[in-house]
Parts: sequence; structure tokens; C-alpha cells
Amino acid sequence: MALNSLGRLIPETFFGRELTPYRDPWSLQPDCERSTRQIRRIPHTSSKLLGTLREAIIASGLRDGMTISTHHSLRNGDQLLNHLIREIDALGIRDIKIASSSVHPVHAEIIPYIKKGVVTCLECGVNGLIGEMISKGELECPVIVRSHGGRARALITGEVTVDVAFLAAPYCDEYGNFNGFAGPSACGSLGYAQVDAQHARRVVAVTDHIAPYPVVPVSIPQTVVDFVVPVDSLGDPAKIVSTTTRITTDPIGLQIAKYAALVIESSGLMKHGFSFQTGTGGISLAVADHVRAMMRKGRIRGSFGCGGITGYFVDMLEEGLFQALFDVQCFDLKAVESIARNRNHQEITAGMYANPFNAGAVVNRLDCVILSATEVDVNFNVNVNTESNGYLLHNTGGHSDTAAGAKLAIIVAPSIRGRLPIIRDAVTTITTPGETVDVIVTERGIVVNDKHPELKAELIRRRAPVKDIRELRDEIYAVTGVPRPLEFEDTVVGLVEYRDGSIIDVIRKVRE
Amino acid sequence: MALNSLGRLIPETFFGRELTPYRDPWSLQPDCERSTRQIRRIPHTSSKLLGTLREAIIASGLRDGMTISTHHSLRNGDQLLNHLIREIDALGIRDIKIASSSVHPVHAEIIPYIKKGVVTCLECGVNGLIGEMISKGELECPVIVRSHGGRARALITGEVTVDVAFLAAPYCDEYGNFNGFAGPSACGSLGYAQVDAQHARRVVAVTDHIAPYPVVPVSIPQTVVDFVVPVDSLGDPAKIVSTTTRITTDPIGLQIAKYAALVIESSGLMKHGFSFQTGTGGISLAVADHVRAMMRKGRIRGSFGCGGITGYFVDMLEEGLFQALFDVQCFDLKAVESIARNRNHQEITAGMYANPFNAGAVVNRLDCVILSATEVDVNFNVNVNTESNGYLLHNTGGHSDTAAGAKLAIIVAPSIRGRLPIIRDAVTTITTPGETVDVIVTERGIVVNDKHPELKAELIRRRAPVKDIRELRDEIYAVTGVPRPLEFEDTVVGLVEYRDGSIIDVIRKVRE
Repeated sequence: MALNSLGRLIPETFFGRELTPYRDPWSLQPDCERSTRQIRRIPHTSSKLLGTLREAIIASGLRDGMTISTHHSLRNGDQLLNHLIREIDALGIRDIKIASSSVHPVHAEIIPYIKKGVVTCLECGVNGLIGEMISKGELECPVIVRSHGGRARALITGEVTVDVAFLAAPYCDEYGNFNGFAGPSACGSLGYAQVDAQHARRVVAVTDHIAPYPVVPVSIPQTVVDFVVPVDSLGDPAKIVSTTTRITTDPIGLQIAKYAALVIESSGLMKHGFSFQTGTGGISLAVADHVRAMMRKGRIRGSFGCGGITGYFVDMLEEGLFQALFDVQCFDLKAVESIARNRNHQEITAGMYANPFNAGAVVNRLDCVILSATEVDVNFNVNVNTESNGYLLHNTGGHSDTAAGAKLAIIVAPSIRGRLPIIRDAVTTITTPGETVDVIVTERGIVVNDKHPELKAELIRRRAPVKDIRELRDEIYAVTGVPRPLEFEDTVVGLVEYRDGSIIDVIRKVRE
Repeated sequence: MALNSLGRLIPETFFGRELTPYRDPWSLQPDCERSTRQIRRIPHTSSKLLGTLREAIIASGLRDGMTISTHHSLRNGDQLLNHLIREIDALGIRDIKIASSSVHPVHAEIIPYIKKGVVTCLECGVNGLIGEMISKGELECPVIVRSHGGRARALITGEVTVDVAFLAAPYCDEYGNFNGFAGPSACGSLGYAQVDAQHARRVVAVTDHIAPYPVVPVSIPQTVVDFVVPVDSLGDPAKIVSTTTRITTDPIGLQIAKYAALVIESSGLMKHGFSFQTGTGGISLAVADHVRAMMRKGRIRGSFGCGGITGYFVDMLEEGLFQALFDVQCFDLKAVESIARNRNHQEITAGMYANPFNAGAVVNRLDCVILSATEVDVNFNVNVNTESNGYLLHNTGGHSDTAAGAKLAIIVAPSIRGRLPIIRDAVTTITTPGETVDVIVTERGIVVNDKHPELKAELIRRRAPVKDIRELRDEIYAVTGVPRPLEFEDTVVGLVEYRDGSIIDVIRKVRE
């Protein structure tokens, strides 16, 4: 065991892997070559089309102990991973590691297969019940949580080797060119899958819509796809692109958004070339609405919006407020429709979005990102992975990536959620290190990281409710009471990797 | 020395490299992993912008003995390679290998630097004077000629390692995203450069037009570009995209085109899903004109046109005769304008176009390709590299790639050119093996490879002038006389690699 620089106790190894404790966001240098794979030649007249997913699993050469992946661009509408695990089980294959880009609540269906030993490791973060059960020790399945950029890095460096990627291919031709722009399971950007397509040892395109050759635009090319297999359905279109991306109407949320907008206005970043990311939460979109108003008023031509893209950002692009959108994932139908049509709406890989180990990711160019939190500690460290009950319920997403890249990373959160304080002495799990977090905005006040004295002074000049973080914590504790520390056992059930591959925290079994 | 399967004498080694004699187009299997490179991390706030090309050479770490590359999408308008070699010389760097995608007549400027030892090897084909001088033994500089697909393969397998790629970037932002769609040196597709961008150890974007961040669409992303350097000019726009792509008016050419069209019509390929490639020659375009008429008449919706793309193909796309264009290089301004605007006009890498060692290149899907020749032998082997004087004057381009991939590879050529017979007992150099060539069309008759008896019968049924190849040869010899055999010395000055990396022929020093 060793303490990392944030005081978290990190084991030396985890299921045989030697761990590097987190030190800081910047200094870890890669010492490896890009992952490679055997070069193949196919007979130039051969067909790639197979009859069933089971045939594809057999053709892929999948065996006990191997690692598979899927992408999560179909989100909670995805049915492929469940289908796949059922077929893998039916074939008697065991000890499979899942290195998907994310696992969603819908994938709770695989729980029996974890119990049965079909799936023995999750080389990816999980959203929902599986994480809760792992936290409780009810599932024996080590889990390694990575950010979007960290996952791309892990595949590109070879930290994770995907033996077979089974990629949901919404609009696909029989020779393996596909995109996510059309078909019944249209999801827009395939930014996560693009990394697997380049780095997995075998690539299977699984589609519910075979289109005439050739499918263009080509998001993933025929040159990397070994097999194409049609299935009845990839998932539930209604759940593939959420339509819940609406501006909050809650007065607390609106107050937070107003403060966040004031922070942006005070930062000096709001000028030509401004670049911006928000999530899909109601508060985030309310901030975006203020940003749009500011940009219009100042006749500002921004450079780009990025991240998961919503119709809100599409509107800003079309209004000329952004020169381009960088889209690693589409969050609603309007974004899907836009990426298929507008060449300034650029599909990007998760590596281009956020991998720290390349010649420069898009997050490096971000001026401002609006991020959420389940907890923040007095050193600005943020938790988005676990809830205050200690259960692993959420993936990191681009949280730590964008915080590290952006000039101004603003956490927006209500001061109290479910009677629990957002700001506290220590967070249950550290997802994002405090030194990459610039401002915390709650309805009770704004906290500015000490590294931005000018911003703090400017906010005070503008009579914003700037507070010291401990002062704000005490104010919140006065309402909620001091939270009772959770009790954990020593057993480490999961890792939280920082984007560079070092271990920023671990998930321990919760003592019931 | 060993004879390859076409009877050419191949040395065992060439400048230290062990050679594999050519055997057949299909059976050579790769036994290697994809080439890799050191993974780098840049400080997330760093700038990539340098002041001069010389600074960029220094920053790239270029040293004696290393290999550089440029791309040839600016063709005979390119000034970058000349500029680069002057600067490399000025820095005192010697023994540089050039592994560009092609070298053009304009690059004759580097001849003094070859003589001086600045450049000591051409890991790429050459068009023009340099090749002639090497053939004459006037320049000591081994040359390795590769097809477009073969070059992609060589970079991807690591047969060729490019230490620094200096990539002309017509429309580029300061962080290294670029495309060829705009700017004074707009050239359209950057399909060749994309391979270097992914496989060179260092990548420098050299631009004469810095655009505001971010440049979209992204043809080559910031994630692989180490440095960006502005220069006054990349080249002569008038020569970058040729405007000589016009249908022939020569009666012999028109006759050939008519016969070629009859071959296509008789092949049974002219139906929905038809795919097609031609070059830019006047005869090729005349064939395309017939094809267009046939497609219109038959209300045929083709799948794709590919290769170097001309305005002629753009018209066919816009008319709905093709579903898509696959464009590895734009041949005229209309193609440049189209690729920037039309999402069905798809930029593809040289690897996707024609690399034989992947999960399937575009050429595999070609129905018909129209190709030229300087010579054809009685076994259908084709020469496009050397002229009948023995001088290496032309690159392979996509010749052997498309011939191997297409169902119907038609060679169109006048029977006599410069008083020399096109069909002869033996060609000076074998570029493309006869077993991948299906039909030869001259104004004196049509020759069908024995592997297509049905096509031959159908052409005879249609009263086409089908001839035996030896019969046609004799008919031509009767006019030209039997060509006098060239005299060569034993010295091998260059290799002609087949697309799979085996050696299909060598270039020997011409005896003066």
C-alpha cells in the first residue's frame, strides 16, 4: 500500500497489475509505443457477411480469458452487450473481460453471467446496479473506471488489449463501412468505437441496417472490419438518444446557472475564439443559455463547442456562435441529424477528444467547461463516481479530462442534494483532482480556487457571493449536519484510474 | 540472383535489404504487426507553431541517415520538397532517404543534392529526369518504386519507417488540424498524407494558410501533428491541379474508347451497383463518357467511382450515376470544390484505397478500371514505369493495385506510339502482372485474357474485332518492325515492388 499525492491508500497491485499511484495531472510521461496488432490480408473477393452473432463470435476466435468491447453510443438503449454475453455463455466461453466504453443500467441483465463466471472483469466504468452490487461485495468482478480520454489512452498504449470489439453499426454496408448517422439505431457520432476499431485485434460490425455499398460518410472503414453481422435490432431507439436535455426550471438551478455565467463573464475568456463544453444536465444547459446570450450581445464568434453534443449546441453552431462542433457523442436527435448533414459538426474519436498521451487533444483547447459533482471536498477534489452511500454508480465520462484541459473548469451543483452536503471535508471517491478544478458554484455562493486570484477579485468587484470553501462547507453543514463517515472494508473492489493511468482512488467494499 | 515467377532475375539483396521475388498476386501473407511509434505527451498548454522550415527540421530531430517524406497531392506544383532539401543541406544533414508518395519533374531541383550526398536513396517512385539519370547511372541513388497501395502497405508494416513527415497542409490551424479543401494551395484529398500522418515518427504540418482554430473537416488531426510551420508558399497553384483532363479528340483514341465501352457492355458488369475507375488520360475520359451514356440509358445507379477523381466523376456523382466517390487524390479544381462540399465525395487514405494487407481495400470492390500502358507483353504483363528506351520515367500509381482488385481491368493504348509497338514479346519492365489484366484494347483490335472465355465469346458474338495477342503483336510488328532489344548492364539501380512487397522487376542501368 502507498499513499498517492491526494492521500488515498493505493495497493501495489490489483489482480496482478502493478499500480502507479497518482501524483499530479501533468507530469506522468508515457514510456511505450502505440499498441499494435497483427496485420491481416483477406482474399480480395471474400465476403465478410455472417449469419448470426453466434457465428461472428466463433469466427472472431473468441476464447476463454479474452477481452471484448462494445461502445456506449446507444447508451441505455443498447441491447448488443446483453445479446453478446448470452451468446458467449451459450458457446460455453468463460472468463471474459468487458472493456466497453461504458456499461449502463440496461446491462444489469449480465449480472447472472458475472455470477456464473462468464464475465469476470469490467475493464470499464459502470452506471447503475452492477456497480452497486460490486460495491456491496455481492458480485466478484473487479472494475476499473476510466475517463473517456483515459480509456482511449489505455487502448492506444496497450494497457488494455481488446481481443474482439463488437461494434454496434447503425448504418453499415456488407463490407464493413459504417456510420451512426442513419438506420433505426442512429446515434450520431461513433467517437468511442473509432478507438476500438483501430486498436482491437478483431473487429465485428453488428448492424440492424445493411445499406448498399458503400456507406458514406465513412466513420469506421472497411479496412479494419473483419466481419459484418446483421441482427434484428441493436436496441431501443427511444432510449438511444435521450430527449431529456432541457433547461432547468428549478429556482436553485437557475440561481446556480446565473452565478456560473457571472464567473464566465468575469474570467476574461468571453471573447472571439471562445470554446465551451457543458453536459446535458438542466443546470448546464441553463448556463449554456446565458453563454449564448452573452455571445450574441458581444457579437462573439466562438471557436468550438465540444463533448457530448446536444441540439442546444447545434443551434449555437447554426447561429454562427461557434465555428465548429467537436462531437464524440450525440446526446439527442437534433445532434444526430446535424452531424449527418453539417460538415462543421465534426465527429471526433475519444482519443482526439481527451487522450492525454498524444500530440494534443481537443480538451487542451477548451476555455470553459461546466461540470457536475456528487461531492466536492475542501481541496476542490471532485467525486462523480460514487454516491455518498459509497456505491459506485457513475462513470467518469470526460470529467477529469475536460477539467485538466480547460482554462476554466466550473463545477455547478446544489449545495445540498438528498439532505446531503455537496461540499465536505473529504469526498467518498476522488474522480477529478482539485488542482484541475477552478471554481465551484452553488446557489449559496461561489468558491474560487486560490490559483485564480484575479478572477476572485473580479467576482468580488462585481459583488458576487464569493466564499471561502471552508466557510461554505460550514454553512452547508449547519443545515445538513456533519455527514457521518461511511464504513468500508479493506477489500478493494475497483480502481479509479486518472486519465494518465495512475490510480487516483480505489473503490472499497462498503461495510453493510 | 533468383528468377521470379515472371522470369525476371531478382538479386537476393539490394542495399542490404533481403528481397522476396514476386510469385503471384494473391498468396503472399503478411507476417508482421502494424508499425508502431513512440507515444508522446505534450504539455497541455504548449504551442506547436514554429517560425521557419529550418526551425521545424531542427525541432523534428532530423539527423544524418534518417528518412523523410512528403506527399504528392500538389503534384508538379509542389515546392515543399525542394525547399526542404535546400534547408536540410544548409543544416549540414547528409544521407537522407526520401520516402515521399511520389516525386515529380519539378523536383529535378534536388539533383545537385543527390550528387552532394544530402539525399542518398529514393524510397519512392520518380516521374521525370531523376529517374532518367538514375537509369543512365548518372546519379548514384537507389530507387524503390511502389504502387499507391504498396506504399501504404510499406509504411503500415514498417518496411519503410518515415522518421519525419513534412506534410504540405493547404488549410491548417495553429494546433495542426488540416485539410486540402481551401487556401492558396488547395489540392482536395490528402489521402496519401494521411498514411504518413499515422505512421511517421514525427509529423510537421507545413502550411501557406493558417486558418482560425479549429479547421474542419479534419483530414489530418491535431493529435498526430507535432509542429506547425508557416511558409510563404507551398507551390504553384496553377500546377497543383491539372486542367488537362479533357476527352480525346484523336480518332484513334476515340476508336479505342468505343471498343473499351463495348467490352464493358459485353462484360455483364453494367448493372446496378457498378463501380468504376479511370485515369485522367483523354482516352480514359472518352471511355467514361461512353460509360455515362450507358448508365443513363440503362437507368443504372452505380455504387462508386474511385481513384484520382476528376470533374467528370463529380458530374456523374451529382447526376446520381454513382452513390459515392472514393477520392485518394483530386485531379482538377472541380474535384477539389466537390470534396469540400459533398459528403458523398469521400476522402480516403491510400491504405483504404489500395493496401493489399488489411481487411479489404476499395480496389477489391471495383468492377472495372481503365488503365494505360507504355508496353504490354504477350502474357498481358504491363509496363508503365519505364519507356522503351529503358529509362525510369513514371510511377506505378494505382496501376497494379486496381488491376489486382478490379473484376475487369482494361488496358487502353494505341497500338503504336512514337513508332514503337505497344504489344511486344517482352516488356522492358513489368509493373503489373498479366494475370491481373483482363483485356487489352487498341484501335487495331481487342485482346481478351484466356481466363474470360465468356467475355471473349460475347465480344465475338457482337462482331467486335477480337484478336489473339500474338496475332495483334505480329500485325503491329509488321508496321513498326520488331523492336531492337535494349542493352542493359548488370547493375541494378532500382526495384519495382509489387503491391505486396515482393519484387516484380528491377531497373538496370541502360548501356549507352
